[in-house]
Amino acid sequence: MLRVAVLGYGYWGPKVVRNFLSNGCFQVAAVAERRAAVRAEIARHHPRTIVLEDAAEAVTLTHIDAVAIATPVVTHFALAREALSRGKHVLVEKPLCTTIAEAHELITLAEKVGRVLMVDHTFLFTGAVQKIDQVVKAGELGKICYFDSMRVNLGLFQPDVNCLWDLAPHDLSVIDRLIDDEIVGIEATGYCHLNRNIPDIVYLTLHFAHDVVAHLNMSWMSPVKVRRFAIGGKEKMLIWDDLDQEQKIRIYNSGIEYHRQDEKAVIIPDYRVGDIYSPRISRHEALAGVVEHFANVIAGREASIMDGHRGLRVVRVLEEAQQRLDRNLRAIAARRRTLA
Amino acid sequence: MLRVAVLGYGYWGPKVVRNFLSNGCFQVAAVAERRAAVRAEIARHHPRTIVLEDAAEAVTLTHIDAVAIATPVVTHFALAREALSRGKHVLVEKPLCTTIAEAHELITLAEKVGRVLMVDHTFLFTGAVQKIDQVVKAGELGKICYFDSMRVNLGLFQPDVNCLWDLAPHDLSVIDRLIDDEIVGIEATGYCHLNRNIPDIVYLTLHFAHDVVAHLNMSWMSPVKVRRFAIGGKEKMLIWDDLDQEQKIRIYNSGIEYHRQDEKAVIIPDYRVGDIYSPRISRHEALAGVVEHFANVIAGREASIMDGHRGLRVVRVLEEAQQRLDRNLRAIAARRRTLA
Amino acid sequence: MLRVAVLGYGYWGPKVVRNFLSNGCFQVAAVAERRAAVRAEIARHHPRTIVLEDAAEAVTLTHIDAVAIATPVVTHFALAREALSRGKHVLVEKPLCTTIAEAHELITLAEKVGRVLMVDHTFLFTGAVQKIDQVVKAGELGKICYFDSMRVNLGLFQPDVNCLWDLAPHDLSVIDRLIDDEIVGIEATGYCHLNRNIPDIVYLTLHFAHDVVAHLNMSWMSPVKVRRFAIGGKEKMLIWDDLDQEQKIRIYNSGIEYHRQDEKAVIIPDYRVGDIYSPRISRHEALAGVVEHFANVIAGREASIMDGHRGLRVVRVLEEAQQRLDRNLRAIAARRRTLA
Amino acid sequence: MLRVAVLGYGYWGPKVVRNFLSNGCFQVAAVAERRAAVRAEIARHHPRTIVLEDAAEAVTLTHIDAVAIATPVVTHFALAREALSRGKHVLVEKPLCTTIAEAHELITLAEKVGRVLMVDHTFLFTGAVQKIDQVVKAGELGKICYFDSMRVNLGLFQPDVNCLWDLAPHDLSVIDRLIDDEIVGIEATGYCHLNRNIPDIVYLTLHFAHDVVAHLNMSWMSPVKVRRFAIGGKEKMLIWDDLDQEQKIRIYNSGIEYHRQDEKAVIIPDYRVGDIYSPRISRHEALAGVVEHFANVIAGREASIMDGHRGLRVVRVLEEAQQRLDRNLRAIAARRRTLA
Repeated sequence: MLRVAVLGYGYWGPKVVRNFLSNGCFQVAAVAERRAAVRAEIARHHPRTIVLEDAAEAVTLTHIDAVAIATPVVTHFALAREALSRGKHVLVEKPLCTTIAEAHELITLAEKVGRVLMVDHTFLFTGAVQKIDQVVKAGELGKICYFDSMRVNLGLFQPDVNCLWDLAPHDLSVIDRLIDDEIVGIEATGYCHLNRNIPDIVYLTLHFAHDVVAHLNMSWMSPVKVRRFAIGGKEKMLIWDDLDQEQKIRIYNSGIEYHRQDEKAVIIPDYRVGDIYSPRISRHEALAGVVEHFANVIAGREASIMDGHRGLRVVRVLEEAQQRLDRNLRAIAARRRTLA
Repeated sequence: MLRVAVLGYGYWGPKVVRNFLSNGCFQVAAVAERRAAVRAEIARHHPRTIVLEDAAEAVTLTHIDAVAIATPVVTHFALAREALSRGKHVLVEKPLCTTIAEAHELITLAEKVGRVLMVDHTFLFTGAVQKIDQVVKAGELGKICYFDSMRVNLGLFQPDVNCLWDLAPHDLSVIDRLIDDEIVGIEATGYCHLNRNIPDIVYLTLHFAHDVVAHLNMSWMSPVKVRRFAIGGKEKMLIWDDLDQEQKIRIYNSGIEYHRQDEKAVIIPDYRVGDIYSPRISRHEALAGVVEHFANVIAGREASIMDGHRGLRVVRVLEEAQQRLDRNLRAIAARRRTLA
Repeated sequence: MLRVAVLGYGYWGPKVVRNFLSNGCFQVAAVAERRAAVRAEIARHHPRTIVLEDAAEAVTLTHIDAVAIATPVVTHFALAREALSRGKHVLVEKPLCTTIAEAHELITLAEKVGRVLMVDHTFLFTGAVQKIDQVVKAGELGKICYFDSMRVNLGLFQPDVNCLWDLAPHDLSVIDRLIDDEIVGIEATGYCHLNRNIPDIVYLTLHFAHDVVAHLNMSWMSPVKVRRFAIGGKEKMLIWDDLDQEQKIRIYNSGIEYHRQDEKAVIIPDYRVGDIYSPRISRHEALAGVVEHFANVIAGREASIMDGHRGLRVVRVLEEAQQRLDRNLRAIAARRRTLA
Repeated sequence: MLRVAVLGYGYWGPKVVRNFLSNGCFQVAAVAERRAAVRAEIARHHPRTIVLEDAAEAVTLTHIDAVAIATPVVTHFALAREALSRGKHVLVEKPLCTTIAEAHELITLAEKVGRVLMVDHTFLFTGAVQKIDQVVKAGELGKICYFDSMRVNLGLFQPDVNCLWDLAPHDLSVIDRLIDDEIVGIEATGYCHLNRNIPDIVYLTLHFAHDVVAHLNMSWMSPVKVRRFAIGGKEKMLIWDDLDQEQKIRIYNSGIEYHRQDEKAVIIPDYRVGDIYSPRISRHEALAGVVEHFANVIAGREASIMDGHRGLRVVRVLEEAQQRLDRNLRAIAARRRTLA
């Protein structure tokens, strides 16, 4: 039985506590939460759990084997470093941390102390992504050409992240799972509505070495929630609509075929439209799979699919995208001032 | 009765002929079409119409008052210039021409000879855009913040245009109609699947002087056809789904309100979710309105809403976007070569 | 080349003329239409076609080989009888006629004179029904259990038919095509809104000998148009949504399996939910197939799939359903009067 | 503080317990449940609650003020009678009981002992029905003409009820809430798939005195879950799609207008198609409202909207519908035997 401390009890914390409780391998030994009223409620429901105000203090508890970090992103690095250096396994909410340098330090530390560092890329344990992974790995779509994601809604104001850091990690972790390719170009632009420094809308484009493009349209300003992720392959195309209760995934037997037109020596594409197939998706809770995976990786029964290196790959894109976004938005702002 | 020659009888030509025939002001005096079989068919159905092989010849017919140019884009400029210089009114399929310089020359020439130069920005005469225009002009949405368009489908290969020049003019003409603002930044990137030089996917972002962003996601490689255009305003938001037969337009009484939180001196946004309203949209054929407008502008009864200056504004964005697109795709290609 | 006279030029007539013209086997020798303005227009577009006011006169033209009857339902019988007795082949818009007795007389007459009597059950030639027929005949759904149809919209007032006779023939002809079973029970009820004698809403239930039920929900009073036809089989279920442009047909790998629960000696059903498959549907025009079939049956190249016997089977259900409907509505009206 | 015993802890029981716990007026003093494993789990989570095996025993507890009956339908009557006769308030899951006679006896008894008898017609406390009620009562739809409900899914086998008793109470309680009219005709038919005596599909039609029809299409054999309830009024029509997350209710400004056509002295209907309006629906949990209502009615602060008389009205329709259903299915079965 692993004794775990859960740091932070906002949106993600209660879910992770519930899933640790349902899993036979963990005991929720401690919870840290800033708000007194919430602490009181936790104490009422979990009389055998230590409830602390300070997350940093929870990390020092000697009888704790692991910590789950669900505090604001800016605190991830310090808490994870402290926990690892005290020999505890660490599960961090996405994104792992805020810079490439921090990610490297955490990875090195985890290897040195021989403890598990895991980023909660929850989506990898959804039935939808597991099915997509299986379809892509089986080569059913043919060579991947593009990813196109739309992830928009009326967003919650989050003081420590912008729309990019809030929404992109989901798609980036999925894309990183689906293709093993190097990024050769990152473009990012967007729009700041509420606050000059916090984009509410971000458009991110990634170019990969082997002729793949990925585009992410992210917004906190859409009246309608959309979770649409398309994958174009040479043979088939797939659309994952996470809000469609009946057909989360549709696979289109559509594609582009090439015919060499001899007299003109040009290649004519021929668009093929075919049947549509919608596989049944398992409806299990993804976070239960994450918690199970955490236990299995700690026990050495499974190799991690979301370790520090995976977390770093996502942070690397976020950091570079943020730089391009900043540069673009500054240039636009300068031109606007010139006109005014 | 205006005698009109229709140049080109591919996709758009037959529609424009049909609408000229239905309109009481025009007589279709001539049609030019390269393909002999199609010419034979035209002659059978329209025995009193002159049917020619060469569009350039049709422009020289002395008894013609106007020409409608539905030939490939690269030929628009030469045909329009010749027609105008011979004193004929000109209706050109979008886009007007391929460069800013050409557009300027056509505008100047039309003014000099006192003839009408009109670009067929058909969408401006759809019931949906007319309703949106009315809603926006009435201030119902509040100050506009963003436009977000998704215009994707399995595309027809067109040898003389890429996905940008094929799909963007629709949205650009609509945006140009809805807001009167100056562009201060253009970003474009994309993906070439079939041919290194012809993008099949293009992502275009426009930044306007008065704090507006527009994003266009265009693709010839989507298994599903999507025509989704969102407008975000400070008061309300609007989604136009052109493929939704029942509710083409939905207006969301949703918005973002700001509350100054005193103790912290920060502004807290509050997302408001409210009723949805879907106005009835007129189902008239847009091209009939274009043809009627052409007649009215020639007769001096209406001011043109899609004259050469409007055509130029669209071509200007296309030309600048193409430059950025080329530069980006060359840079990506170079980095890919370096890796290989 | 068969010379055909088209009787009636309202909703269906122009479509049938167009399809006869496109088909190489027919020449539209005559058209009959009551309205003078429409006759003038027909004459303009079809200068070589005889245009008459009186359908009964058109039937007497000696150089006519066949007639297509697109006049109001109450006139079908007399016109078809006259045409057959003069040795002409007959294609009648659905329903064939208004009584079982009339249908029998037409069938007998057609056999006696050796001419083709065909009812235009157009739906049998749609891509959707052809695909469904193939799926059902291949046994893919398993033994059929039920049909459930919803066919509602804001209806056109038709003076000579009610909602039952207007809408039911479509589904009845499809059901008759899909299963070869005897009806052992007919129930019908409904609602008269505008006129005491013309139901605007009808609910029809058919029970078949081999454990199949069919339910038709028909209405002229629905704000939304619905064309939904479900088929439940022991193995799979199918939903045909004729207004869904992307997925007209969905086949659900869902079913009910039975497990004998030993300790209680009861059978426990287990609902299986599985993949969904949406086959591509051909988008040809159904009426072109009907016209081709008419030519082939006349020429002896094909056996008819919609002859007088098929038309009779539909009329038989309509006549019996009408009797039950009348009886029910009279009883309800009587009870209402008693209360008032 | 009212001490309540919850009888039965299957599907509804846990929900009612949770809502009693969240409501400040109740203390869950006892729970009765047949299954030992479930009792053990209840005891673990609710150490201060008495957990019994026998519901009949729980009713006899002297310190209990009220009982909530969530046991199988056939046990409702005996448990409710016993509880009332011991002076306890009673909340019964729908349907109230299985016969009109039982319902009368419970109503009489409740009045005699001066205790509250309430049926949990949960839907009346959903945001959707509350909004519909408000729209209908305000006369926005005009005079009601019809109700049309489709309530289908892959059903759970329930040994003590059929599809009619399982699904109809929801719609019947809503219709009873929306119109105050007398039923003058009930028709019911259906289909038994699994078991000769338990219909899996039921079609129910009700005719009301003031020219209203209601049709319910209920099935446990549909691969797709549908919850669609349409209301047609003379002025407007409303569709409630309970599974539509964005637009649960749509109000169509569509209707039928009558024009007297003078020359023929007939009335011509004119179908009007207009705007669509989708009001925002409150997303509170309906059962919380039921529990609050129970407390308020007990305290005399509110008049009951779902008392025994309302429960009786639903049971009356169910009992009469069951008789007609039985008679129809027996007749069909007899005709099938005759043929075989």
